[in-house]
Amino acid sequence: MPRQIIFGDIDGYEEGHLFQGRREMMPSRFHRYWGRGIDSDKELGAAAVVLSGGYKDEDDDDVIIYTGAGGRDSKGKQIKDQEWNHNDNKGLMISCDRGIPVRVIIGHKHKSPLSPSSGYVYAGLYYVESYWDELVSFGDHEFVMCKFKLVFSGNNPTRILKREAILDHGIRDKKRRQGTVVRVVRDTSLARTVKELYNYECQVCGTMIKTKGGYYAEGAHIRPLGKPHNGDDSLRNLLCLCPNHHVMFDKGVFTVNDDFQILGDIEENTLTVKEAHKIDLSNFEYHRKIHGYD
Amino acid sequence: MPRQIIFGDIDGYEEGHLFQGRREMMPSRFHRYWGRGIDSDKELGAAAVVLSGGYKDEDDDDVIIYTGAGGRDSKGKQIKDQEWNHNDNKGLMISCDRGIPVRVIIGHKHKSPLSPSSGYVYAGLYYVESYWDELVSFGDHEFVMCKFKLVFSGNNPTRILKREAILDHGIRDKKRRQGTVVRVVRDTSLARTVKELYNYECQVCGTMIKTKGGYYAEGAHIRPLGKPHNGDDSLRNLLCLCPNHHVMFDKGVFTVNDDFQILGDIEENTLTVKEAHKIDLSNFEYHRKIHGYD
Repeated sequence: MPRQIIFGDIDGYEEGHLFQGRREMMPSRFHRYWGRGIDSDKELGAAAVVLSGGYKDEDDDDVIIYTGAGGRDSKGKQIKDQEWNHNDNKGLMISCDRGIPVRVIIGHKHKSPLSPSSGYVYAGLYYVESYWDELVSFGDHEFVMCKFKLVFSGNNPTRILKREAILDHGIRDKKRRQGTVVRVVRDTSLARTVKELYNYECQVCGTMIKTKGGYYAEGAHIRPLGKPHNGDDSLRNLLCLCPNHHVMFDKGVFTVNDDFQILGDIEENTLTVKEAHKIDLSNFEYHRKIHGYD
Repeated sequence: MPRQIIFGDIDGYEEGHLFQGRREMMPSRFHRYWGRGIDSDKELGAAAVVLSGGYKDEDDDDVIIYTGAGGRDSKGKQIKDQEWNHNDNKGLMISCDRGIPVRVIIGHKHKSPLSPSSGYVYAGLYYVESYWDELVSFGDHEFVMCKFKLVFSGNNPTRILKREAILDHGIRDKKRRQGTVVRVVRDTSLARTVKELYNYECQVCGTMIKTKGGYYAEGAHIRPLGKPHNGDDSLRNLLCLCPNHHVMFDKGVFTVNDDFQILGDIEENTLTVKEAHKIDLSNFEYHRKIHGYD
């Protein structure tokens, strides 16, 4: 029975860390398995993947198209479709839905600008942007593969520069330069905690979005993070909302008073709050104030 | 009557372009007004703002806390609250809700690392991340001000490096490094077209999110943009959806067949499609395929 999975960075292993071999990754739980590409838990998500040249995963440094697991015989020959129910594919889907960061490890057999000449290099944290089915040819057979798009989200400034330069290059045409970002939904382990507490049901309308990978909800900060509001990233400042009510709450379409009654022009009257969820009411006060309710 | 507002970059004016004075910005419609901070249209959104030291707007280069317009007497003294209904504040709210990029122009009187020694510099495109009320003291009076958070979204690589370095510095504590991005909603002028076509009503459920600034909906690409899917950014590949159905569509919780019947485990049966909206059906075919419906 393997020890519990660890998500995110692990102390002592910075981006660029070199491993001589796969076994070296196991004691720290950097990647718990010697023979598998994906370190995954079917309930919690995937924490790490290795690119070792087994499938022809595409990789332009910051965007990786990764192939899931399954469907091979003992010699590594593809003999059937991959399945979304497979422990490893399921884990990567959960990581996508919940915004769990995935450690990407690149081996010398994988072709990429980042590949080491021997051993394995830690390429940093990526997020799973999306997943989909793809029909892939193997000789005269075609099988459905589980595909994942992984996008670099680590902290290495030189790589970030390179990434932005690529983006920059890509958006030189007029049409795309007119576009911009409307919404960025970030997530943290605390947001996952509040979502688990409410079983992914929106505290306003009870909606639960069921996906192939599990459930989707968003952690909404009551008092916004970052300047100038400087809200806490703590459970006392978080709600579990569906995307629609998250947008409406952030824009002040509704707010909440101290006994959890909803103020504003929406159908619902009361915010569902569980006993165990101790909200700091001064955060609601702040939210009411910045949206002109007090 | 001023000529029509222009959004986004304007040919011939790169980031860093220096203007000797405000009148120079008017013929090209870079900023149409000599005496106003905000170049805005109450229906369409704001296209440009000038920081000229009038209000003490905060600015750390890539995040600007901008104060709206109104409430001053003819000598520039604040004598009453600002109002969200004011043409200029309304325009910036719309830019926030619709993801319209705003040109930021920094004058020599504004205190910022980017301020020129004389004249005005074009600091690039920013998006309006959020807006809120703030009570601000003016001597012994307090007035409500309309505040906006503007975030740099331009293309200048050296500034991007600096910005990422700041971010990097900010997220050194463990808790935040575990977090990641779940969802990025980008928008384009085409997405705005499809939203206008449907009056911001979701093509699946009819939901229309009404905000202080107007309406909020999302433009959803049927065949995803970017590699490996390489969908078109065209009306033939776009839907107008509420955030909930956008998430569900992108994750394949439902799909659509060639006569606009909905397939999948949701309540609604039919996608609303207007006569004028010519969808390329091969995009639905692609969507069905990658989500395992065909």
